[in-house]
Amino acid sequence: MKLEELAAVVDGQCQGDGGIEITGMGTLQSAGVGEITFLSSSKLQSQLQACNAAAVILRQEDCPVWDGAAIVCDDPHAAYAQIARVLDSTPRQEPGIHPSAVISDKAIVGELVSIGANCVVEAGVQIDAGVVLGPGCVIGQGAQLGQDCRLSANVTVCHGVKIGDRCVVQSGTVLGSDGFGNSHEDGQWTRIPQLGGLIVEDDVQIGAGAAIDRGALGDTEIGNGVVIDNLVHIAHNVVIGEHTAIAACVAIAGSTVIGSRCTLAGVVGVADHVTIADDVHLTGMAMVTGSISEAGTYSSGTGLMPNREWRRSAVRFRQLDELVKRLVALEQKIPD
Amino acid sequence: MKLEELAAVVDGQCQGDGGIEITGMGTLQSAGVGEITFLSSSKLQSQLQACNAAAVILRQEDCPVWDGAAIVCDDPHAAYAQIARVLDSTPRQEPGIHPSAVISDKAIVGELVSIGANCVVEAGVQIDAGVVLGPGCVIGQGAQLGQDCRLSANVTVCHGVKIGDRCVVQSGTVLGSDGFGNSHEDGQWTRIPQLGGLIVEDDVQIGAGAAIDRGALGDTEIGNGVVIDNLVHIAHNVVIGEHTAIAACVAIAGSTVIGSRCTLAGVVGVADHVTIADDVHLTGMAMVTGSISEAGTYSSGTGLMPNREWRRSAVRFRQLDELVKRLVALEQKIPD
Amino acid sequence: MKLEELAAVVDGQCQGDGGIEITGMGTLQSAGVGEITFLSSSKLQSQLQACNAAAVILRQEDCPVWDGAAIVCDDPHAAYAQIARVLDSTPRQEPGIHPSAVISDKAIVGELVSIGANCVVEAGVQIDAGVVLGPGCVIGQGAQLGQDCRLSANVTVCHGVKIGDRCVVQSGTVLGSDGFGNSHEDGQWTRIPQLGGLIVEDDVQIGAGAAIDRGALGDTEIGNGVVIDNLVHIAHNVVIGEHTAIAACVAIAGSTVIGSRCTLAGVVGVADHVTIADDVHLTGMAMVTGSISEAGTYSSGTGLMPNREWRRSAVRFRQLDELVKRLVALEQKIPD
Repeated sequence: MKLEELAAVVDGQCQGDGGIEITGMGTLQSAGVGEITFLSSSKLQSQLQACNAAAVILRQEDCPVWDGAAIVCDDPHAAYAQIARVLDSTPRQEPGIHPSAVISDKAIVGELVSIGANCVVEAGVQIDAGVVLGPGCVIGQGAQLGQDCRLSANVTVCHGVKIGDRCVVQSGTVLGSDGFGNSHEDGQWTRIPQLGGLIVEDDVQIGAGAAIDRGALGDTEIGNGVVIDNLVHIAHNVVIGEHTAIAACVAIAGSTVIGSRCTLAGVVGVADHVTIADDVHLTGMAMVTGSISEAGTYSSGTGLMPNREWRRSAVRFRQLDELVKRLVALEQKIPD
Repeated sequence: MKLEELAAVVDGQCQGDGGIEITGMGTLQSAGVGEITFLSSSKLQSQLQACNAAAVILRQEDCPVWDGAAIVCDDPHAAYAQIARVLDSTPRQEPGIHPSAVISDKAIVGELVSIGANCVVEAGVQIDAGVVLGPGCVIGQGAQLGQDCRLSANVTVCHGVKIGDRCVVQSGTVLGSDGFGNSHEDGQWTRIPQLGGLIVEDDVQIGAGAAIDRGALGDTEIGNGVVIDNLVHIAHNVVIGEHTAIAACVAIAGSTVIGSRCTLAGVVGVADHVTIADDVHLTGMAMVTGSISEAGTYSSGTGLMPNREWRRSAVRFRQLDELVKRLVALEQKIPD
Repeated sequence: MKLEELAAVVDGQCQGDGGIEITGMGTLQSAGVGEITFLSSSKLQSQLQACNAAAVILRQEDCPVWDGAAIVCDDPHAAYAQIARVLDSTPRQEPGIHPSAVISDKAIVGELVSIGANCVVEAGVQIDAGVVLGPGCVIGQGAQLGQDCRLSANVTVCHGVKIGDRCVVQSGTVLGSDGFGNSHEDGQWTRIPQLGGLIVEDDVQIGAGAAIDRGALGDTEIGNGVVIDNLVHIAHNVVIGEHTAIAACVAIAGSTVIGSRCTLAGVVGVADHVTIADDVHLTGMAMVTGSISEAGTYSSGTGLMPNREWRRSAVRFRQLDELVKRLVALEQKIPD
């Protein structure tokens, strides 16, 4: 596309030769011939000197330091996202069912669906129009995939799972596995059949290698527009509110309810049967053992220290209660 | 089944119309026509008002607040588990070998086995009677699966792994991968072949997306009745005692030995070459860097706080050793 | 092989009958007839009494406690690693393309390649000589695998990923998945196409169930000789320096740069856009929220405690800032 066309897409102002052809995107460092990049912050201005991009998306105030072609706009990051969608070069799998795929004659497959090599689609499955399944996906009995869902290679969707429209799932992920349900009888764990389902609403994105369990009774629910990163664990009967974002390696235990528009940073752990309000933000590696009723940002853990110093602090942490008693004793000796 | 039949299964007392047909289970909220639910605690009594279940499993003392059909018993949760097994509606894969599966003629496959589409069973594999392999499973050379094991779709069992009877493995899990074995020579890591095996005893349950390594030399061992949740990492030569439960996202490093009847909550990390006694319970996100010789419950980390307050505590944690010195100085100035 | 031949391989001195045949390796406990083991430390001398190995690799100073056949050398662990490579009994997949594999006629496949059952190799893929793909691997459009790479069963390599020579990847791992890239517009997350690639250099080892994302723009890069354990998450545009070792369940967020020869112990979390110097060592479960410019060992968290005591320390941690204020108040009352 021409630069001036891209400028129109993002409602930006084209500067320099609007007729140049833009064929791809790159970073400030990597962008070269025919590629456009963006300056997300004025702090990075110095990187423009060595930038070889054909054009740069930037703010008005950054224009003086770049004399090449540009798209000027208020939010270069949002403009980058829009242009990336236009220039998306991700290879598309051709529509049609690969001859090696095993499709039950009791499955319903919509129009313009693409099913990759060695996929397995079991009886009672419903796949709506425009769905793409990468090679090696397994769709269990009675599962449903809404319009235009895209599953990368080797995704497993277990029986009866319901996925809404336009969801995107990366490779290796498992949706609707049996949860960790056992009764403890005579010192032994006995399996409880997991009879519930998993409902994933519309526009949900799920990363690679994630595992989301079906409900024990009733359903596990992932709300509209939720985004989930790699290697996330979501246990049985968890409910995630709309537009919540869950970063990599988060673990959410059973029956926990998480509000809408929350953000969970990487490696957060949330205990079972906890309720978290809307608009709660958890910083990286936070440990949540109880419910959170107020919106806000929450944290736990300790900061990184050189190991030798950390060892001293860690020893003192063990003694904290005793140290407080010594402090109180001193206070009692020294009245106001 | 009829309600009175289910009551007999759990040794409970049928109340109301014992002839009603029960076809499924649900939660207090979700259970509807033909479905039974259970009241796990008297604290939830208020939820019975809006409950639409055909029948409820409850304790004698909760009967006054429910005038519908019921099964009265001492432990509604245990009764629920038993009835869930009776009413289990999980679809069963038909016995037989799917024509798309690739089975070595040097594999031994027992009676009433079900092998799903696109499975691969290599030479020397032994699959005992009643085993079910979901679609896309790969069973490596010489591996053994005991009677009635059930592997969901896309499970990988590496060469020579031995799995006992009645084990259940969720999708995406890898059993017997090569461990993280390297020698450090001249500043570089050089791979050490992993020559040991993996032995999983009977009645073991393993969640989705888990990874259990084979031994470097000698075997990794998972004892009878161990239950393991999603995305758990178990390194080479780890030994897990019988009936221990390991929740999601736990990481256990190499050559560590964990006792029997332990519980490891989610995201616990255990260092290598550590020995943990029987009946040890580790709370969520606990960090275990040394051996534990006494049964009991252990924890680490800090509790969740609003981020602004947490930042202050975290700063003080860094200064703890210095603060103690100031406390000591004060104590010396104020003799008893 | 004969014991004397193995001694020559490791430049060690053969002691006892050098003609005995060694067919395998074991641990001090497991090694039996025909098997060799090694004594890594003099602390383990007592285990030699019950050792049934045909021969032991040990240091000169440990010879007095073992009167059987032996290889005497300076570094028994390094010798073990070398001999393990010689005696490696891991079954090899036969060269050739399994008839059930789906190979695009637009893929280039080198000599002596072994492609397992049900693999999928898409258009534009280049597979160099000696590569082994276990069953069920999917290699996406235009991906490249260098000479002698070995991928275990069910590995997914996404489109355009470039992998160097002699890399080893365990089962279930995903290389080149789309990263967690979204723009936040009107309270909703909107997907940003991930247009970058993933470059894995030579001699890289990657464990089971790991997920390494492609770049958003520009590439994610894994340097020569990097070793990565199971269930590790590496986000888009991360750069890992040469010979760095990353243990299991580590999570590294987007655009972070990690130096060469670093070690990250298990369950370490590293925030996004952080730069870590060469030769930095992070202990288990460390939380890295900022850049580290100096080589050294760093830690965070608190040590394991009995739960009852931990609860008291955790309460005091919340009060730390207030406690310091009380300490300061006392100090002001008691001048020097």
